[in-house]
Amino acid sequence: MPSTTEQSAVTVLGLGPMGRALAGAFLDAGLPTTVWNRTPGRDRDLVARGASGAVSPEEAVAASGLTVVCVVNYDAVDAIVRREAVTAALKGRTMVNLTADVPARARESADWAAGHGIGYLDGAIMTPTVTIGTPGAVFLHSGPEELYRRHRAVLDVLGGTHTHLGTEIGRAAAYDIALLDVFWTAMAGYAHALAVARAEGVTARELAPFAKGIGAILPPIFEQGAEEVDAGTFSGEGNPITSAVSSMAHIVHVSESHGIDAGVMRAAEGLARRAVGRGHGADGFLRITELLNPRR
Amino acid sequence: MPSTTEQSAVTVLGLGPMGRALAGAFLDAGLPTTVWNRTPGRDRDLVARGASGAVSPEEAVAASGLTVVCVVNYDAVDAIVRREAVTAALKGRTMVNLTADVPARARESADWAAGHGIGYLDGAIMTPTVTIGTPGAVFLHSGPEELYRRHRAVLDVLGGTHTHLGTEIGRAAAYDIALLDVFWTAMAGYAHALAVARAEGVTARELAPFAKGIGAILPPIFEQGAEEVDAGTFSGEGNPITSAVSSMAHIVHVSESHGIDAGVMRAAEGLARRAVGRGHGADGFLRITELLNPRR
Repeated sequence: MPSTTEQSAVTVLGLGPMGRALAGAFLDAGLPTTVWNRTPGRDRDLVARGASGAVSPEEAVAASGLTVVCVVNYDAVDAIVRREAVTAALKGRTMVNLTADVPARARESADWAAGHGIGYLDGAIMTPTVTIGTPGAVFLHSGPEELYRRHRAVLDVLGGTHTHLGTEIGRAAAYDIALLDVFWTAMAGYAHALAVARAEGVTARELAPFAKGIGAILPPIFEQGAEEVDAGTFSGEGNPITSAVSSMAHIVHVSESHGIDAGVMRAAEGLARRAVGRGHGADGFLRITELLNPRR
Repeated sequence: MPSTTEQSAVTVLGLGPMGRALAGAFLDAGLPTTVWNRTPGRDRDLVARGASGAVSPEEAVAASGLTVVCVVNYDAVDAIVRREAVTAALKGRTMVNLTADVPARARESADWAAGHGIGYLDGAIMTPTVTIGTPGAVFLHSGPEELYRRHRAVLDVLGGTHTHLGTEIGRAAAYDIALLDVFWTAMAGYAHALAVARAEGVTARELAPFAKGIGAILPPIFEQGAEEVDAGTFSGEGNPITSAVSSMAHIVHVSESHGIDAGVMRAAEGLARRAVGRGHGADGFLRITELLNPRR
């Protein structure tokens, strides 16, 4: 059983840019912090700031009641924690896995943890390393409510907003995947728009103020769209899918006339055309959500 | 030569939802407004509010010094204005084409107008019909500066922000295409994210507050990214393309495990992987702008 001191102590496994930011925030808050990284030497600055540099992951997890893991993916997590010595050291302790991966892996990790008497919480970090320890950070968590409540004070030290999404362990990863989907698709659209603009003699700096305007109108559209999607009613009033298809065809045409790959827009246009073909041309664009997910 | 009265009078050709909104704003401002639509009957409400309903496009354009055209695309514009009687009536007058299409068509229309002694401005409306006549409207214009200055007071009646992007007639359409590229790609990402979320048991309303958060972080990222793209330097510090590729692969995997088409993300992932393959894995994601547009 970890002592009271060990309860407020924290271990960080994985010292990439994000892991170092997490450990730094724990140190800034004055928590006894133990760190470990597979490749040695990454702990130097943290040890200089007061962290204990463990020589093995089993030593690292034994030092604290709570271990935060943040590595490249769950394969990397498993390679660290599923060695017998580490699994044994984690027994009766809690592991918060802030590594990004798919929901199925989170569920699988929770099963493994339960089978070895390890408390398990899964989480996702939605903001860049620079936000850690600041009000701008956004963390999502899922897993047993009681476990989350017990460790919340330590997690709060990481700054920003922490949301417990529910006991179903895969929820943090599911939100993470969906939100990264929005982010990276939008970024692909912006990169493409800048390429098309340049081909038309418009610089990125010239387009940016207007692109920011497009970014600014998305949140209210996202909010209204969510209600339509949950209700299954898609008002195309003033902006039907047919009109989206026409815009998309123009974008593809201009791109390709400049020799610019339009694969992303072609795929999006294909979905919109399928919705039109199924008789939903007068509906709003988010009708394609129904088309994408045949199960309801 | 149009008289002074005709200078401040305005004609609107095309009475779809947007054309009706434009004509309504002119009427609200007390301008003598003449309207015409290919399909009769669409002018009823506007005539009740004081508009003159013309029986032909030549009669409509002859009534005012300025004609605003807003129809489905430039094929529809040409079908209306390139009839001899209409072209003759437009001579010595100005036409502002607010129809959405590709930059090449705007250039071609300007050539035609110049050949027939018609003043020609091209424009794009970036906001929905409900914004017309309100501060929320966004209009982009391009074409001869003097012509724009002469008609600016009438155009301002449409509300919102009017920006003259330059004398090159294709610029309004080029900005329009690039901005719609950002918008529709982001919307495709959101629709897909909602489909994936639902498959994972997360409702649209549950995801929306966090999706709005993603929307809110885009404008500053767009601004910083524009400087990188213009400078041709892509700092991947803290968020390299390799990490985007890893997220994208997770999104594709989760989508397809639920039977959800991931064509849009697959296309985006393909671009990112090509950038990595060319040795730019440590760069920021907007490096793909260079890859998309081989000409510089």
